[in-house]
Amino acid sequence: MQAQQAMPDVDLVFHALGDPTRRAILERLSRRPATVSDLAVPFDMSLAAIGQHVQVLERSRLVRTEKVGRTRTCQIDPEGLSLARQWIEERKRVWEDRFDRLAEFLDEDDPE
Amino acid sequence: MQAQQAMPDVDLVFHALGDPTRRAILERLSRRPATVSDLAVPFDMSLAAIGQHVQVLERSRLVRTEKVGRTRTCQIDPEGLSLARQWIEERKRVWEDRFDRLAEFLDEDDPE
Repeated sequence: MQAQQAMPDVDLVFHALGDPTRRAILERLSRRPATVSDLAVPFDMSLAAIGQHVQVLERSRLVRTEKVGRTRTCQIDPEGLSLARQWIEERKRVWEDRFDRLAEFLDEDDPE
Repeated sequence: MQAQQAMPDVDLVFHALGDPTRRAILERLSRRPATVSDLAVPFDMSLAAIGQHVQVLERSRLVRTEKVGRTRTCQIDPEGLSLARQWIEERKRVWEDRFDRLAEFLDEDDPE
């Protein structure tokens, strides 16, 4: 049984997404899971550097990892992506509601 | 007539969204447009510092500004938010398609 994980923080998620290497790792992992060593090859980075990026992604629930024997496999965790999408949609919704209210107001004000 | 603006770059958009002050500015602007001076008050920052954040947001098409006389008014530009949402949805879609293909494969393989 897995321990219940806390909701990731929106700050952590957007900080993680703000880095182009971390977004490239997510693009790679969305196609299929990979070990940290698999990820190090195309990115031409040290295992330690990739491992640090993976840790940042894991803390923000964008990636989950599982260690079997000596190999750590990484895959997408949809939780962090959902949180980022939710924040963006909330901003769009609040912004668009303003226009709807403005349109209603103008309709009411219309003498026709 | 306004000049046609190029599509914002996904790197610019996520870099801009990675900063908590810039996200707070977007939250504020989603409720209503504001001048740079309006924004400086709640954030307790200099006009110059807010102006720089606004420039980053403008370059990534998250904010558009308009100068009337000596006052620059800022409002949400939905273009940048749409680009960020699109990137996130594409990652989720590719990831979820994998599971759908796996489920189909398991169905075909089922002797029942």
